[in-house]
Parts: sequence; C-alpha cells; structure tokens
Amino acid sequence: MKFIHTSDWHLGRQFHNMSLLDDQKAVLADFIHYLKANPVDAVVIAGDIYDRSVPPTAAIELMTQTLDTLCQEMQIPVIVIPGNHDGAQRLGFAAQQMKSSGLHIISDFDAMMTPVVLHSESAGEVAFYGMPYNDPEQVRHYSQQPISSHDEAHQWLCQQILSNTDSQQKNVLLSHCFVDGAMESDSERPLSIGGSDRVSSDHFDAFDYVALGHLHQPQKKGAEHIRYSGSLMKYSFSEQHQKKGMTLVEMDEQGFKSATHIDFTAPHQMRIIEGELDTLLQVGKDDPHADDYLLVRLTDQHAILDPMDKLRAVYPNVLHLEKPGMLMGIEQQVGRAKLARGELDMFKDFFSEVQKTELTSEQNEAIQAVIEQLNKSKGQM
Amino acid sequence: MKFIHTSDWHLGRQFHNMSLLDDQKAVLADFIHYLKANPVDAVVIAGDIYDRSVPPTAAIELMTQTLDTLCQEMQIPVIVIPGNHDGAQRLGFAAQQMKSSGLHIISDFDAMMTPVVLHSESAGEVAFYGMPYNDPEQVRHYSQQPISSHDEAHQWLCQQILSNTDSQQKNVLLSHCFVDGAMESDSERPLSIGGSDRVSSDHFDAFDYVALGHLHQPQKKGAEHIRYSGSLMKYSFSEQHQKKGMTLVEMDEQGFKSATHIDFTAPHQMRIIEGELDTLLQVGKDDPHADDYLLVRLTDQHAILDPMDKLRAVYPNVLHLEKPGMLMGIEQQVGRAKLARGELDMFKDFFSEVQKTELTSEQNEAIQAVIEQLNKSKGQM
Repeated sequence: MKFIHTSDWHLGRQFHNMSLLDDQKAVLADFIHYLKANPVDAVVIAGDIYDRSVPPTAAIELMTQTLDTLCQEMQIPVIVIPGNHDGAQRLGFAAQQMKSSGLHIISDFDAMMTPVVLHSESAGEVAFYGMPYNDPEQVRHYSQQPISSHDEAHQWLCQQILSNTDSQQKNVLLSHCFVDGAMESDSERPLSIGGSDRVSSDHFDAFDYVALGHLHQPQKKGAEHIRYSGSLMKYSFSEQHQKKGMTLVEMDEQGFKSATHIDFTAPHQMRIIEGELDTLLQVGKDDPHADDYLLVRLTDQHAILDPMDKLRAVYPNVLHLEKPGMLMGIEQQVGRAKLARGELDMFKDFFSEVQKTELTSEQNEAIQAVIEQLNKSKGQM
Repeated sequence: MKFIHTSDWHLGRQFHNMSLLDDQKAVLADFIHYLKANPVDAVVIAGDIYDRSVPPTAAIELMTQTLDTLCQEMQIPVIVIPGNHDGAQRLGFAAQQMKSSGLHIISDFDAMMTPVVLHSESAGEVAFYGMPYNDPEQVRHYSQQPISSHDEAHQWLCQQILSNTDSQQKNVLLSHCFVDGAMESDSERPLSIGGSDRVSSDHFDAFDYVALGHLHQPQKKGAEHIRYSGSLMKYSFSEQHQKKGMTLVEMDEQGFKSATHIDFTAPHQMRIIEGELDTLLQVGKDDPHADDYLLVRLTDQHAILDPMDKLRAVYPNVLHLEKPGMLMGIEQQVGRAKLARGELDMFKDFFSEVQKTELTSEQNEAIQAVIEQLNKSKGQM
C-alpha cells in the first residue's frame, strides 16, 4: 500500500502582502500530475490546510477543486485533520455527508476514535486515525483528566486510540503537534510559549506510521516511521534551503516499509541574496529566476536613494530589503555626537545621488547646523 | 410525493445584541420531531441558511447537527441554495463530496443545470433545480448577455433551466429573490435600491412548484404553486403577527397538488406591548410569556427614571424601548424657548422621582437659569 503524507498547505497565505495562492495552485497542479502518473491508495493531510480559521474564498475554491479532482475524478480517499491554523468546526461542516465520497475530515475527538479503514493486497487492512489539532485545555475538558501540557494531552489521546485498535490491522496516525527536538522554521505559529508545546515521540512508537503536521521542514522524529512531510512550499526566508514537497509512504505486511520525499517546487522560490547594489543589479540581468520572492541584503556602506525601485526593475518580487552594510557603518561609530556625523554623511550621499555634485563648503556648514539644531531639539523632548 | 419547503433560517442571527441561536435550535428540534411523525421525501431550503457569509462557529455546528440528523439518521435528501446572506463559495465547500449522502448544496450556475432527481410513486420523477442567489452583474458575467436587472437575470436563468427540462419529469425550482408585489418585513436585507430588485412571477409559471426564499412572510405570489415559505422564526418586531414555520408541498401525477403551512413557534415570540409603565408592570406579573422578546412602547407623558430596569424586572427580555408618550408632550410644544420649558419639566419629573418631593421655587429658578445658559451656549456652538 502506498499513500501520500502531506501537511501545512496554508492555502490563502499572504507573505509580505503578496498572495501565494497562484504558487499554491501551481504546486497542487504538479501534485495531481504526479498522482496521475504514480497512483496511490490514499492522501493524508496532517493539518493547516488553510492559513487561518476564516480563509479567503479563493483558498476555499482551490481546496474544493483539489478535492473534486482527488475524490471524484481520481477516486482517491483523502483523510484530513485540522491544524492549529484551521478552524476545526468550520472545516468540519457536514463532514458526515462527505465520508461516502471518500473525503474524511476528522475534526473532533469522537470522530478520532473511528478509523478510516482501507484495504490493500500488500498490507491488508490499514486503519487511519486522525487526531485533530488540540491544546491541553481541550483535552482536559474532553478527558476529564488533570492534563496540563501538550505532552500529557498527546499521551492520553494516543492511549485512547491504541486501546481501541484491531490487532488484525496496521495503524496510521495523523497528528498536528510539535514533537520534541524537531527543527523549526520562522513560518510556524507557536502552539504555546516557552517549550510547553513539545510532545515526546515515545507516545507514537506503537503506530505503524505517524503522519505529522505543523513543522515546515521534512524530517523524521525519534524513529523512521514518525515523520513530518514538511509544508507544501516555502513560507519564510528561513526555509530557503529546505526541500519542499510530500512524503510517499509504503506499507507492507510488516507495517511500515519506506518513506520517500517527493520534491515539488513552487514557481517562485524564496531566496535571500546579498551583495552591493550594483553587483546584484548586474547579476540579476542574467538570472533566469529573477522573479523569485527575495529578501535582499545590501552590503553597500553608503546611503542609496530608492534602492527598492532600482532592485525591482531587475528583481520584480523583492519582498524585503535589509541594509546591514549601512548599519555596520553606524555601529562602528559610538555616541550621539558621532551619530550626528553619520546623518551628515547620509545627507551627502543623498545630495550627490540627486544633484550629481558634491556639497559646497557653505552648504556643508548649513546642513551641519540644521542637523545639530535638530539633535539639540530632540534632546529637549 | 411530499416535501418540506423552508427558507431564511438565518442561523447565528443577533437581534438587539441577543443571540437567537437557542430559539433556532428549539425550532429545528420541533421540525425534526415533526418529520419523525410525518415522513417526507425531501427537504428544500431556499437560501439564507446563515445570517452572514462568515457565520459564527456555533451556527455552523447547529447546521452540521441538523444535516447529520436529516441526511444520515433519517436518510432524507436535502437540497440547499445560498441566499443573499450566505457566502456561496463558503457554503459550497466540497459540495461534490456530499451528493452521494443526499446533501445537495447548489452554489453556482453550472451546478444549477443538473437537477437533483427524486423518484416517487405518486408523482413519478421530480427534478429539483436550485438557482443560487444571484445579482444582475453575476448573471451578466456568466451569460454574456446585456442583463441589467434582477428581473432580466431571473428571466434568463429560468429560460436556461426550462430549455433543459425532461418532459417526463415534474420540475421544482428553488430561488432566492424578491417576487414583485410580495409583502416585506423589516428583517430582510434589500437586494438593491429603489425597486430594481423586483422579479416578475411570470418567469416561474412553467415550473410545477417554485420554492422561494428571501421574504419572511409565508405567501403565494401570482399563482398557488409559486410560494414563499417564510422565515424559520420572527426576526423583527414588524413580524409580530406573521405565522412562522414551513410549507408542506404535495405533488402528484398532475404536478402541484397542495401547499400547507406547518406552524412552528419559537420559545420566545417577538411582540410589541404598549401602555403606561405601571399598567404594563401589573399585567406582566400574570403574563406566562413575560420572557418573550419585547419592544415596549411607554405611553406615559412624564419622564421616568430607569424604565428599562423596571420593565426587565417583570419582562426579562425587553430588547427595545420607545417613549412615544413623552415625544407627544414635546411635539405639542413649538420653538426653542418652549423646548427649554420641556427640559425643565423633564428635570422636575426626574427630581420628584429621586427625591420624592417637588422643587422649591428657589431650586426652580436655579435650574431654569442653568438650562437657559446651556441653551445659550448651544446657540454659540
């Protein structure tokens, strides 16, 4: 039996005021294309389908189209749990009416206890249990147990499921949580503050496979069969070197057999480029991926007029600009008086860019007087 | 064949900051109770399931529970169109995956052209066409025709459907619109300004039955078989004398046979009560429905301290208070100087309520001087 494990689609996400929906649409089209060439028995999505509990309608339409293709056209069962970004009740609307079409949205603890059982020649019956995203308080309320941490919550939920399993079946679990020791990115919303969101991988050991969601980097945790598939695409610049895609899981009579990363690449990558403005502009002219989503770090030590406009003429999707070079210039100087000279230097750079000539000594004195006066009045405030 | 025609549930509606969800829940429980005693072949809901495009999660959960009972437990097909209050794309999420369970949410024009066909011994095949709520611009865009009014839009959409019907089948249409000459209430959100939202009932004549939604009063329009079921419950004080419930429709070999109003009454009614405060308080003590949602019109001609508190001690759900009696007192006086005397009178009422004594002549002069000064300063502003 083969199935695709994926998570963290975050449909409808905005990044620096840029909608990523067209990129998400392109990756999902590649995914469908892959599935048509490489049939699987199921698709499991371990949470964070949407980026927020009330997603934009365009994200809902994309999800509807994707499900129509998977469930109706291709007849592939799809099993979904909500993540911390999704609204469980909204996502779970009329979920009972979807099951007979092979769409299983498991959005509450009661539904968690009834697995989706799929049959296959190679692995026999495989029971898929979905554990909807939960925080300790929800589990405390549901269990009536004194549960105070994510770890205790997941321990209790795993025990409930494991005490319910059928020894004739292989068991797969979908869960959306932060397994201890896993690697974070900048684009995951913290589940709670100060490390109390960490869950031990031990609770998951007894399952044949655990399809995790929440962390955006593909990785195994504690054992080969406990895995994050990672997110659909890059959602922060800190993910620039991460592989993105989905995990192809194979099961046989023994249970877990293998997990393979399938690479999917969004049309626009998220990258950080660094250098002096003139060099970057020169290099960008021959860069076939100049329209990637970029964070640009300018190393120039002098002030530059409208650097964003200049960069965007070559790199249309510069989303963020940093100027560590200029800060270094400032950091090397110490104290208020020296900072005032820094401002004069910046004005000189500005003046020469705009006027294509240097300040006369008279102009120099005048502007210095203005800056000093400004600094004096700042001191009085 | 028998089916229930209902519309305008407005789940999640707030009325004067009061959630009506518990009342809606109670009426839907009565509805389920009725269906268990009086089986039908289908339930059709002609729009405005929710009160807004992003309904509160509690409203979504109530709808989910209701659909679970209807579609799963009772195996009754349910056919739904969005109204002007619903978000069509949100309501239509994964609608394809619901059809095999008998839940048909028809949220776009393409889906409109494929009827839900139900079989019955008494009426043969009945085709249910759902026309999702639409405005002229949407229909102009979809049809590529120069459509500029609701009337033209519905004419064109009806023509599309009618040119597609099977002569062996009876045809039922669900539509959410304002049929010309129908009676309005205060709780319907206008579709457009100045009468351009009106649709002629002529376009609907050729259908065997037309299940209309939008207007909150049960009524037929132009013919016996073109009907509004009215809303689930009262949603404005202007509806105090309206019957509320659903319409039981019967079809036979000839097509439409009969339509019967089934009365459902919410636990709290919306009523207007009118009279002097003391009388109302006296009457309220013996009123078994003192907890109805009330608009109170006080006819007292003098100012009263904290009338809302006094009323709510007897009628806990007074939602709105009008004092036409006091306004009459003011309206009888003319001009600014006389209005100033009106303010003095009101102060005298207030003083005697609080102090249980009349103003002395000194106090009278003092307060009169203050009011005059206030009016003078208002004039300068």
